[in-house]
Amino acid sequence: MLGAIEAGGTKFVCAVGNEAGEIFAREQIPTTIPQETIPKVIEFFKQYPVNAIGIGSFGPINVNRDSPTYGFITSTPKPGWRDYPFVQTIKDTFEVPVGFNTDVNAAALGEAALGAAKGLDSCLYITVGTGIGAGALVQGQLLQGLSHPEMGHILVRRHPEDQYQGKCPYHSDCLEGLAAGPAIEERWGTKGVDLVDRKEVWEMEGYYLAQALMQYVLILSPKKIILGGGVMHQKQVYDSIYKNLKELLNDYVTLPGLENYIVSPSLGDNAGITGSLLLARQALIEA
Amino acid sequence: MLGAIEAGGTKFVCAVGNEAGEIFAREQIPTTIPQETIPKVIEFFKQYPVNAIGIGSFGPINVNRDSPTYGFITSTPKPGWRDYPFVQTIKDTFEVPVGFNTDVNAAALGEAALGAAKGLDSCLYITVGTGIGAGALVQGQLLQGLSHPEMGHILVRRHPEDQYQGKCPYHSDCLEGLAAGPAIEERWGTKGVDLVDRKEVWEMEGYYLAQALMQYVLILSPKKIILGGGVMHQKQVYDSIYKNLKELLNDYVTLPGLENYIVSPSLGDNAGITGSLLLARQALIEA
Repeated sequence: MLGAIEAGGTKFVCAVGNEAGEIFAREQIPTTIPQETIPKVIEFFKQYPVNAIGIGSFGPINVNRDSPTYGFITSTPKPGWRDYPFVQTIKDTFEVPVGFNTDVNAAALGEAALGAAKGLDSCLYITVGTGIGAGALVQGQLLQGLSHPEMGHILVRRHPEDQYQGKCPYHSDCLEGLAAGPAIEERWGTKGVDLVDRKEVWEMEGYYLAQALMQYVLILSPKKIILGGGVMHQKQVYDSIYKNLKELLNDYVTLPGLENYIVSPSLGDNAGITGSLLLARQALIEA
Repeated sequence: MLGAIEAGGTKFVCAVGNEAGEIFAREQIPTTIPQETIPKVIEFFKQYPVNAIGIGSFGPINVNRDSPTYGFITSTPKPGWRDYPFVQTIKDTFEVPVGFNTDVNAAALGEAALGAAKGLDSCLYITVGTGIGAGALVQGQLLQGLSHPEMGHILVRRHPEDQYQGKCPYHSDCLEGLAAGPAIEERWGTKGVDLVDRKEVWEMEGYYLAQALMQYVLILSPKKIILGGGVMHQKQVYDSIYKNLKELLNDYVTLPGLENYIVSPSLGDNAGITGSLLLARQALIEA
């Protein structure tokens, strides 16, 4: 039996299941401070005979196995989680192999194995929610270099009618600063779910996301792009993305029809937890 | 003995050598039309008993081995080269394994094996010259997805004092449209080599290249970045790149000191041809 933790900024999803992505049991635990959240996570897994645990975590995290702080959550502003030895804590408790990657890399893995990019050795998974992040499978491997990608913070050009200053504490008007959920709320004065009928909201959202997709396509050339996260529940964003991306690329690169190339997650909100199960499996194989 | 072709837009460099990057003989052939250029290439290699030939080519090219047009130069505006079956022509003539990738991916491979990124499984090689292109080694493999990257055409934000409209026929003011050699020449009215003392020229160049590097760093997280090509012979650009990139990233990601992270090619102008020799070796191993 495999264990999986999708560690998000507001909640942890814990599950046990198998490598086919079948989930036998799951539980949600609020993300407060490690001293509260982690004991509940441990309690959950103590009920099951898990052979390995996979963690898809919010970041930034240290994924460099040669580093003394491998497996840590690193410079997060989230109280209590900065420099938290996540992998070591789980490993010491259960004495099983532990897989560790970003939540979005886990989701990319899940969608490539069992979802919208099934059978492909390359895909990009982007989440647009409280923040913006992306993970990628490249030639069959989860993308990693010096560290994991931080694709949500790339630069975009301002929409000519956008007066909003941006919400990113590091870069102000980077992609996340202009297009994540909190930016939508602050710009328009109310939450996205209450803006469903305001065409200009989603046109502008697509304007920014299309720019990001242009950069990702030109730099990574993914075989499939999957857009998840709360903001992407607003399906009207897709039309704006398709229209703006088509204009931006101007036929410079040959892509499949955009409607089949840029899609929703097949696994829905289960992409991350499914990918985390697969991280557990990888850890088991490598152990 | 290995053969290598670095196929550029203005000249082909042909060489024979070994996997240590030693070059025994080389020749430059002007890039005119295939009917003139290719027979001279063939003539060169007929002098040597090559076991394999590696090609690092200008693009766009088809690197998808499952495609019926694998090994073709595809949608180039260069007269005569559109839909040219490059690999097949060389293979039919010499009946040896032929490796094929972009010129910049070849250069990335060369620098990672024998140059500035020696010993690393990850690097990014960017050329800034007549055009802008980049290749990358990711977890030990040359980056490829649906196709090869086209990183030179990413979007950048305009410098507030830049009135130049941009030179890219597809995207007007994308990175290549604003920062490649021809754009510098057209904006300032004379070639870059005659602008050495004009500080504002290289400050603006660094402003654009730093934005591109920010996107590449956040998306790919390369372990080393190598800047080649004619424009980068102007060493004063580096200071502007370091300064602007530091401001843009604002310590969001942890990087090594920029002076050691973003560097010139150790192989100088031989990065591409050396990488092409290594493509020949790969083809031989895979054959």
